Amino acid sequence: MGSLLALEKVPGFAIATTAASIRDWEKPRDDMALIVAAAPASAAGVFTLNQVAAAPVKIDKKHLKASDGLARAVLVNAGVANACTGAEGKENALRCVRRLAEKIGAPESQILIASTGVIGRQLPMDKMGKGIDASVAALGKAKPGAFAKAIMTTDLKPKQADAVLKELGDGVVMSGACKGSGMMAPNMATMLAFILTNASVAPKVLKTALSEVVGGTFNTVSVDGDTSTNDSLFVLASGEGGGSVIDKASGRRYDAFLEALHGVSLSLARQIAIDGEGATKLVTVKVTGAKKHKDAVAAARTVAESPLVKTAMFGNDPNWGRLMMAIGRSPAKVDEKEVSIRLCGRDMFVKGAPVPFNEKELSGLMKAKEVALEIDLGLGRAEATMLTCDFSYDYVKINADYTT
Amino acid sequence: MGSLLALEKVPGFAIATTAASIRDWEKPRDDMALIVAAAPASAAGVFTLNQVAAAPVKIDKKHLKASDGLARAVLVNAGVANACTGAEGKENALRCVRRLAEKIGAPESQILIASTGVIGRQLPMDKMGKGIDASVAALGKAKPGAFAKAIMTTDLKPKQADAVLKELGDGVVMSGACKGSGMMAPNMATMLAFILTNASVAPKVLKTALSEVVGGTFNTVSVDGDTSTNDSLFVLASGEGGGSVIDKASGRRYDAFLEALHGVSLSLARQIAIDGEGATKLVTVKVTGAKKHKDAVAAARTVAESPLVKTAMFGNDPNWGRLMMAIGRSPAKVDEKEVSIRLCGRDMFVKGAPVPFNEKELSGLMKAKEVALEIDLGLGRAEATMLTCDFSYDYVKINADYTT
Repeated sequence: MGSLLALEKVPGFAIATTAASIRDWEKPRDDMALIVAAAPASAAGVFTLNQVAAAPVKIDKKHLKASDGLARAVLVNAGVANACTGAEGKENALRCVRRLAEKIGAPESQILIASTGVIGRQLPMDKMGKGIDASVAALGKAKPGAFAKAIMTTDLKPKQADAVLKELGDGVVMSGACKGSGMMAPNMATMLAFILTNASVAPKVLKTALSEVVGGTFNTVSVDGDTSTNDSLFVLASGEGGGSVIDKASGRRYDAFLEALHGVSLSLARQIAIDGEGATKLVTVKVTGAKKHKDAVAAARTVAESPLVKTAMFGNDPNWGRLMMAIGRSPAKVDEKEVSIRLCGRDMFVKGAPVPFNEKELSGLMKAKEVALEIDLGLGRAEATMLTCDFSYDYVKINADYTT
Repeated sequence: MGSLLALEKVPGFAIATTAASIRDWEKPRDDMALIVAAAPASAAGVFTLNQVAAAPVKIDKKHLKASDGLARAVLVNAGVANACTGAEGKENALRCVRRLAEKIGAPESQILIASTGVIGRQLPMDKMGKGIDASVAALGKAKPGAFAKAIMTTDLKPKQADAVLKELGDGVVMSGACKGSGMMAPNMATMLAFILTNASVAPKVLKTALSEVVGGTFNTVSVDGDTSTNDSLFVLASGEGGGSVIDKASGRRYDAFLEALHGVSLSLARQIAIDGEGATKLVTVKVTGAKKHKDAVAAARTVAESPLVKTAMFGNDPNWGRLMMAIGRSPAKVDEKEVSIRLCGRDMFVKGAPVPFNEKELSGLMKAKEVALEIDLGLGRAEATMLTCDFSYDYVKINADYTT
């Protein structure tokens, strides 16, 4: 999964980014991004499960249903989340939709929107309006990578991933961009992510493919256990790559598409975890030997979200006691005598008993950019993996003073 | 709830503390504590719900059952938790029990034990043996407050609370001591706590009283959502205060006992929360207007354990958006339009809409040692309170390097 291209290069779409001054940024920056498809594209989305969902999320769900999975455009702004903003917030979001729909000549139901930033503030509508007009005027002018930068909030790095779908024909590609950082936990897409492809895929099939992929990719990320009000993942397929439409969720061509979507999604998910607020390393928590899949997920999630485990990871402290504590308090079915734990490929605990290991060597191995934690519950064959990061001084620093 | 006395002064019990060198402490300190009742005392306990329970917890549960709720002694050590130590750890714990039982001439089933410290290390049995002998020899010599100090690990302050039970007769008192700090969340007693009284209470009634009290006191504490393998709460009643035995869980005298037990427990629980690792303030999260009690508890717990909420508390940042996020992602039934939030007595959000407040003034109020957060879900009449603390640089510092 290299960086062959960028979102801006996927045939059938035009991209624009604009400095709309939605917040008083420290430095001038683009904070609005627009994707417009030349013709209605197949579209699918996955959204936050937080009961307090932001206005854009509510509108997108409605639009994807009303349009039968077709979209002409996606409008994104950073700086203000438009969540917990009541009737005024919803009306503001709809005004953005109407303005964009009119400008590009599309039905309102084919417009999708996404916001990220501070909760509880109203969108600055004057700036949003001017930003939309400027974005439409600038369509196609965005340089590769500009979209990924414009959607960032506390992210340190832009996040992109690409795939080439040779099996679907010459020049068929896929490219995604996302933003993540704090307030992220599974139970949904846990960030804003946008994946574009010029493959030909029927809307229903796109929806199925997305649901097949999301559980093992974006939903495995947990930075701090907190789930945002705005998290959204969109996939749009323009069909400009030619070839017959993939109209069923099986067969060689569907599998090729699924593989590309999985690869791009997993790469983006890993980039989100490693760029978690204040993170110094990526921690993969793999639980095997669970009785049921839900046990594997529960154990992996409890370990991945334990503050005591995450601070130990930051401190390069091979403290398996905290791992056992987290496994034991998880809702997963656990029998202490059957549990085995490996960290960075070293056994620490086998079948309920600690085994000797070189603490100094293991602490050194934990300094890597990626640390693998393997937990075998020894009770069955189900497994699950979670991606997380460590918990550092900087996480506290970044989050202790965000709004002011 | 003043500090009228201390555990060491409760009639019917003799206390000893000893420097047993269970760990290489930075400074010499007492790390073993012993309570011995002159005659078998009524005893009740509440223990961790963590599936990975330490050896002492397993033994205590068995003993309380086998002895029909009577105990002659409680032995505590700090430094090594004796958790995840397999058959050897269990045998070590039993050897301590046997040695103490022999020394004081009590049946083994009337010995209770508790350990706190690093998980996964075996008890240094030579030191434990010598410590037990020295403790028995020193019984009655402990100065007031010595017990509370000897059981500390990363606690910054010893924690004690007392009550006078006038309704039960002259000189009837109760005194408790506990240790807490990190790895604490509800779902049990979440620490080590010991409450002694010279009231006369039948074992069954003591058990009922403890179960009535624990939900609203110790189980409301959450420092970091992590639940230890060792947490135990013991109440022992010597009956030396005279008067007829309280042998049913009702009536004026039972109510007086319950009130004292509640008061002592709540005071200890608050001390644990405010002395959470790295904490700078106590945060009380009160949820009202829930449809069901479990909704109130779920919402309060999710808010109390949210890293983003806790870092905002540390930063004196009146960020109600994070509160709404946490409420929304909780398992509680929530309707955004009905939610109201007050912080330090100031309205921030009323019936689903933000209301203007003086951000600077509120941020100033948040600098207090105790911050009250009130959330009204507006859906019913159930309520629950959780006690927590903020999340600071020091939490990360304390926990990033604990074992080494």
